[in-house]
Order: sequence, then structure tokens, then C-alpha cells
Amino acid sequence: MKLYGYFRSSAAYRVRIALNLKGVAVDHVPVHLMRDEQRRPEFLAKNPQGLAPALELDDGSVLTQSLAIIEYLDTLRPEPRLIPADAVLAAKVRAVALAIACDIHPLHNRRVVGYLERELKQSQAAVDAWIRHWILKGGLEAIEQLIAPAPFCFGSSPTLADVFLIPQMFSARRFAAPLEHLPKLRAVEAACAALPAFAAAHPSRQADAE
Amino acid sequence: MKLYGYFRSSAAYRVRIALNLKGVAVDHVPVHLMRDEQRRPEFLAKNPQGLAPALELDDGSVLTQSLAIIEYLDTLRPEPRLIPADAVLAAKVRAVALAIACDIHPLHNRRVVGYLERELKQSQAAVDAWIRHWILKGGLEAIEQLIAPAPFCFGSSPTLADVFLIPQMFSARRFAAPLEHLPKLRAVEAACAALPAFAAAHPSRQADAE
Repeated sequence: MKLYGYFRSSAAYRVRIALNLKGVAVDHVPVHLMRDEQRRPEFLAKNPQGLAPALELDDGSVLTQSLAIIEYLDTLRPEPRLIPADAVLAAKVRAVALAIACDIHPLHNRRVVGYLERELKQSQAAVDAWIRHWILKGGLEAIEQLIAPAPFCFGSSPTLADVFLIPQMFSARRFAAPLEHLPKLRAVEAACAALPAFAAAHPSRQADAE
Repeated sequence: MKLYGYFRSSAAYRVRIALNLKGVAVDHVPVHLMRDEQRRPEFLAKNPQGLAPALELDDGSVLTQSLAIIEYLDTLRPEPRLIPADAVLAAKVRAVALAIACDIHPLHNRRVVGYLERELKQSQAAVDAWIRHWILKGGLEAIEQLIAPAPFCFGSSPTLADVFLIPQMFSARRFAAPLEHLPKLRAVEAACAALPAFAAAHPSRQADAE
């Protein structure tokens, strides 16, 4: 399998963690978002959304959307399970992943920040305030109330919630969002950082890191 | 079960369709988003994100995030299946739902439009352009290329993709996004409108409709 990704993409980072937790090796193909490689015809033919990541299977099928890719991996290689077998717990785990995937990350990804800067002529200060607002309000501050670290978001082993939380915490720090008032999230972050599967997926450790 | 929703909320509309397709009856509890009822302490105690919908189970557990709720319903009541058994097809179905849930809807929901208007002092024309841009670019225009209606997004019965697409088409029309160049999406829309489960979930047919 080939993973089309970018070292700093939050969504690609999620997929890298899931692959590492499951011990699935893939070829990593960098798509340089700062050079708009995701808008080139050859990439759009694989993913018409023009977004990373995309997972190309050995038969040429291309899967898109990080959560759909990770659900696929969890079916293909069920151990360790990232989505608990209990249906109510599974819903709570998926809700944390979705709060990040739907309500935080899309509001500060590159295309949206670019629109604020170019089309809406917003200052750097206004863009930074926008990014920090959506990372925290109804975002990480709500997730702080939805989890009960032990030491991972939902118990003694990582789930989909942790797989989504860690890249979002990385982005939060990159954009200097204050996190002092979120002790549960910081505890989960520390627990995950100690696991090789999370550490090896970190943006700074990718071949295309700059 | 109780569904906390709002007639015009795209995310609540998805859950209503799924409940109808599965023949699951719930009590509908309106949360009036225009009166900010989702920010009241009693609702925040159920969903710290302050977003609709939320599904309260009979034991008092509260599930949030429309996709997590629908995945729960698909496990609880597997017929008719909204997520195909085949893992690759399931990933393609989920990817369409996620393209809507992550990359279209959150960019034009009420809290974001409110921020553009109040904090960024954007004109109505600029807000309308923003909304239509994100509905179409990398959004519905990409989804048009990801589906092969027959007559539903992925075959002869509705899946999660249709459940997410129909409320987004409703929003696209509400915000006057041009859809003439998207014949596949319009064909799916027509096929779904003919099914009672979709028709009964329409915003105009809810008790709290205005």
C-alpha cells in the first residue's frame, strides 16, 4: 500500500499513528502541500477533493478521508482494536475523533487559512485568533470534558480518540493555543508520546520533514 | 431514546433519516439554535460541545456527533445496512459522508457564519461567497466524481453517503449554491426524495419547523 501524505498534515499524521499501532508497513509518498502538489491533475485523479491523505491499495483502489482509512485498517487488521467492541463506548470514542475531524481541524487547515488571508484580507493577528478560537471553543475544551484518561482517552490502550487527539495537540502547540487549563488532554498527550507507534509518526520524524 | 435536534440542522437531519430508514422511533426534543438553547447549561451538561444533535439512550447515556450516532444505530439495528459489509466499499461510502461532515458542513454552520459576521465584520455578500465556495470547491464538485448513482450514491439502496448528501443538498439550495453542473448529485437527490424515510425527515416536516 502507498500512503500519500505530508509530514505536517494533521490528517496524514492520524493515519501514520494507526498504521504504526497495527504494524502495517506502507510506502510513504510525500505530497508537498506548500507547493500545491495536491492540486496537480495526477493527484486529483486519485483524490478529487485534492486533500491528503490518500491510501492506495495494491489493486489500485484509492481510499480517502483519514477516518474512513482508519476504519478500513481497523477492519482489515483488528488487533489492536482502535474502535471498542461495545457499541456505546465505540460511539463515545468516535465522537471525540469526529469533534476533532469535523469541528476543529477543518477550520484551520491550509485551504481555509489561505481563504481568510487572500480572499478576506485578514491580518495575521485575526487569522491567529480565528485558529485558536476554533481549536479551543467547543473544541479541545469540550473534549477535556468528554474523556477520563486511564491513561489514554478511554482506558488502558489507545483508541481512535487518541489517534485523532495527538495530531490536534501538535497543531494546537504549533499555533500557540493555550493548553494549561486542559490537564486531561496533556496527560493523554504524555502517555501517547511514550509509545513508539505515536513517536515514530511525529511530523519531525518523517522523510519529507523540513 | 430522545433525539435533541433542530429542524434545519443538517446534522440532526442526517440522524432523522437514519432513524427512519431503520424504523427506530424516538422522542424528538427541539433545541432552538436561533435562541442559543444549545449554549444553556442543561444542554451543555449533555453535550459539552454545545452542538445538536445528541441522542439520549434510555439509560441516560448521551451520544454526540451525527456520524457516531449513525454508526451506533447501524450496529444496534443492522437492517437495512447503511455501511456496506465490504471493507473497501465501506471506506468509499464513509469517505463521502466525511467529505460532507468534515470539509463542507462545518465551514458554513451557524457558529462559523456568526464569527464571520460578528468578529470579522464580513458583509452578507462576502459571507454568501464563503458559504458557496466551501459547499462546491473540494466539496460537492468532488463528491460528484466519487459516486456512480444506481440510483443511490453506491448502488440500489441508500447508504451513509446518501444520508449525509441529502441534508447537504438542502443546505446548498438554501444558500443558493449553483447545482446545475452536478447531475449525479441531483439524480441521487431525486431518488432519495421518493423514499418516505427521507421525505419524513425533511426540515419542513418537523414539529419545530418555522
